[in-house]
Amino acid sequence: MMLPIVRIDYPAWIDEIVDWTRPYDEDHQRMRLAIALARENVLREGGGPFGAVIFERASGLAYAAGVNMVSRLGNSVLHAEVTAIMMAHAIAGSRTLGGEAGYELVTSCEPCAMCLGATLWSGVSRIVCGATRDDAMRIGFDEGPVFEESYAYLHDRGIEVERSVLREEARDVLELYVRRGGVIY
Amino acid sequence: MMLPIVRIDYPAWIDEIVDWTRPYDEDHQRMRLAIALARENVLREGGGPFGAVIFERASGLAYAAGVNMVSRLGNSVLHAEVTAIMMAHAIAGSRTLGGEAGYELVTSCEPCAMCLGATLWSGVSRIVCGATRDDAMRIGFDEGPVFEESYAYLHDRGIEVERSVLREEARDVLELYVRRGGVIY
Repeated sequence: MMLPIVRIDYPAWIDEIVDWTRPYDEDHQRMRLAIALARENVLREGGGPFGAVIFERASGLAYAAGVNMVSRLGNSVLHAEVTAIMMAHAIAGSRTLGGEAGYELVTSCEPCAMCLGATLWSGVSRIVCGATRDDAMRIGFDEGPVFEESYAYLHDRGIEVERSVLREEARDVLELYVRRGGVIY
Repeated sequence: MMLPIVRIDYPAWIDEIVDWTRPYDEDHQRMRLAIALARENVLREGGGPFGAVIFERASGLAYAAGVNMVSRLGNSVLHAEVTAIMMAHAIAGSRTLGGEAGYELVTSCEPCAMCLGATLWSGVSRIVCGATRDDAMRIGFDEGPVFEESYAYLHDRGIEVERSVLREEARDVLELYVRRGGVIY
């Protein structure tokens, strides 16, 4: 058969939300950007209420960004963290974001099992999370088999973990999604 | 900035290995196909020694196939299971493979944490694995935070799990990769 080509194109409005030229200092500024992407994805009905940004740690510049595209592109793999990581690889032209620069993944909600694994392979050296697994589960999203040991595993591999940063602002977007009748899958 | 487009094109030789018109009966036949893809990926130096196939459970027809494309496409997310799942979504035109037909994922090696999560979201109702996590770890591949509870989680969500099917044949491909000096990442 004719093998399909999978094409992941990013919503053009990401470029309106992210300012690629200015540094985002500190976790709060960085998390606000991830939450802004999640909110915009809800308002534009692009998919699930999740956003993620990869930053250069030292400069604070946004390097790549992603939102949930599962519904829009009909592909269950395309969570916000995965689309951000894939964009970063495309920009870097490399399968790893390691090296001296140092990158971190800032996500509006704690990663599901798939995205936590993807974080490990991406080469980022830090992950920062907003809303919690419980917040996501409470509105009906399954997060899969993530345990406290999963975070310990990342930590043991040299990945710093920071959780519940601006949790309430992040949770507000989950609730916005429910109020607008978004699909839970 | 100009947002990149991520494009996943599958090696044309997949079409030489997979016969899309005949049924593959029983787990052994299906696993041999996944292993054949893994082996061909090693011989063609396409990437890591891993292959995966999604089958229609009842008919035994191969529905979609994937191999590890991490090195070839410079993208850490593109494990064999993920590329098979993405191809299946592209063919189905849907973010889930659920429904009455029933699909299963047959993978030449137990999934890493990312792929185990992806399996859960894909909608397949069964996963069949060849080589074990230990086999992969022994040649230096990290599998991430997968625990026995992870498989139990899948089982509790209605996904059947079958492991160590043709384990030795599957492990032979891992060893072939090492002998040929394949990159471990």
